[in-house]
Amino acid sequence: MRTTTAWQGTGRSTALERAEIERRELRADDIAVRVDFCGVCHSDLHALHGLTGKQAAGLVPGHEFTGTVTAAGPDVTGFAVGDGVAVGTIVDSCGECAMCAAGQENFCRAGATVTYGGKDRVDGSVTLGGYSREYVLRSKFAYRLPAALDPAAAAPLMCAGITMWEPLRAYGIGPGRRVAVAGLGGLGHLGVKLAAALGAEVTVLSRTPQKAADAIRLGATDVVNTTDTADLARNANRFDLILDTIAAVHDFSPLLRLLGLEGTLSVLGAPLPTQVNLMDLVFGRKNLTSSGTGGTKWTADLLTFASAHDITADVEVLPSARVGEALDRLSRGDVRYRFVLDLADLD
Amino acid sequence: MRTTTAWQGTGRSTALERAEIERRELRADDIAVRVDFCGVCHSDLHALHGLTGKQAAGLVPGHEFTGTVTAAGPDVTGFAVGDGVAVGTIVDSCGECAMCAAGQENFCRAGATVTYGGKDRVDGSVTLGGYSREYVLRSKFAYRLPAALDPAAAAPLMCAGITMWEPLRAYGIGPGRRVAVAGLGGLGHLGVKLAAALGAEVTVLSRTPQKAADAIRLGATDVVNTTDTADLARNANRFDLILDTIAAVHDFSPLLRLLGLEGTLSVLGAPLPTQVNLMDLVFGRKNLTSSGTGGTKWTADLLTFASAHDITADVEVLPSARVGEALDRLSRGDVRYRFVLDLADLD
Repeated sequence: MRTTTAWQGTGRSTALERAEIERRELRADDIAVRVDFCGVCHSDLHALHGLTGKQAAGLVPGHEFTGTVTAAGPDVTGFAVGDGVAVGTIVDSCGECAMCAAGQENFCRAGATVTYGGKDRVDGSVTLGGYSREYVLRSKFAYRLPAALDPAAAAPLMCAGITMWEPLRAYGIGPGRRVAVAGLGGLGHLGVKLAAALGAEVTVLSRTPQKAADAIRLGATDVVNTTDTADLARNANRFDLILDTIAAVHDFSPLLRLLGLEGTLSVLGAPLPTQVNLMDLVFGRKNLTSSGTGGTKWTADLLTFASAHDITADVEVLPSARVGEALDRLSRGDVRYRFVLDLADLD
Repeated sequence: MRTTTAWQGTGRSTALERAEIERRELRADDIAVRVDFCGVCHSDLHALHGLTGKQAAGLVPGHEFTGTVTAAGPDVTGFAVGDGVAVGTIVDSCGECAMCAAGQENFCRAGATVTYGGKDRVDGSVTLGGYSREYVLRSKFAYRLPAALDPAAAAPLMCAGITMWEPLRAYGIGPGRRVAVAGLGGLGHLGVKLAAALGAEVTVLSRTPQKAADAIRLGATDVVNTTDTADLARNANRFDLILDTIAAVHDFSPLLRLLGLEGTLSVLGAPLPTQVNLMDLVFGRKNLTSSGTGGTKWTADLLTFASAHDITADVEVLPSARVGEALDRLSRGDVRYRFVLDLADLD
């Protein structure tokens, strides 16, 4: 086995400890990656709080990272030592079902192997995430990091970014389409940038009017205050797609009323059991949907698009030793818009 | 005012009484219709039970009927005395909003005027439905009844039929698409006929295996027993569209699991507030939607299609004096598949 250093959950909320962990020796189609930067995702916080079914003690979070290839198995093609790479939330899948065949491994019918807290398909070990200096994975699930992108700011594309990108692509967003982004955080701010770069008219829905200037800077042309019923009424029936990134259970009715004919509310921040009033869907044949992260097809597509349009996250980069501070501030919503850990301090 | 005879709610459930009611004198764009046949819809039952917000005492139900033009106002074009016509759930709308402009008057943003229990846009009177010998309405909301269709069996096309037809058209159903119909009743049996005639592969989802032979006769190629978990598991991820006609609150999870990538569950039988587990939508980017009846665009389209493919409802025709019996049997599910009242006994 190989050893590396990581930030590992202790079972006591966001108190992580620095620990030596093992990585497997490379299989024929594996690469080893020196992790340079890893984003801090809201789901890391959920997992450390024991809300996702994963064991919090021993957990190494982190599923959006960039780094450098340090070794490659004999069957690896397309990567060489020294290449910049990006890795997201999935590191393996069955490879045989219709979803894998379609490049939608995030919907793999046998269940994708997730980057941390998952179960390795070969040896059954629990996967350990990117809050560590090295990661070993099948090269199929690594992506070339475009040279034009800042490696720290690009890391959040791999979870927050692709979670926005798949619905934008799936619903054919482009010029002439009206997109709203509900919630302006790690996911939402990338949703605004990507939808605007696709040519759509973008509106931010927020209960925090102080974010209006940021929303415009990011590419929105309008902001609707979701605590203002008159503002909501003025915008009834307006949007083709709402990317709902609100990270808490909330009432969908006010958002559904903002959709036009056959519009879609895609709930991406809080996919929990919830109440829905079907009458909100009747008038306009409106759709409620959800999805999460992305498969290889659209992840590669995102990186190409982000490179061409120079899109990365707005990040605050911290040395990885400050991971607890990042998680605590994230839990209070005190970040614009994504923390990224610099793992160099683990050497 | 004109007078006619009707079956009118008494406030005591399905005990209707024969009564003289008034119809307005014809406005310039009105026609008067001698109602020949009127379908008995589940929502008539709901309305008589006071579940729809309409006043049950004094209510005249009935919103899918066929008949004969007996008079026409001076501005009416396209109809002449003696023409066969069909009328559905909507008799007026604002005519100015984007939905009316799109022929989706069922989604009129000012609220369509419904055929009974609605409020007339001119004089404010409460509309009285098709369980009566005469109806007066704007000619825009009447449709030529194709000569090829049996007038009694065609009546249910105007509510049950169009409720199935709009989603089938909106989701582009045709050859190569897999459609399931959940619940085989008034709506469902027309959903099967219409989807099959469009060239789709049609499956019936039912907890009543005794209906299998009927399902095949109506055009389905397969039946899934929704009380059999193994049968459900075998059909996971199979369908592009499920027309859910189940007329009671029910769990959507087993149905959502039957949908493939980007499949749609259209809830048409019971659009009530309900619990949904969003995780059932995540894996496959599945859609939950609803709609109700139809606008002028697709209603005209349905009648053309039904005429070309000789599609009408399977009906049990009763003299209108037996309306109470029809309603009671409907409430027990004892009908294959739609009661139609013959109003000739009101003369």
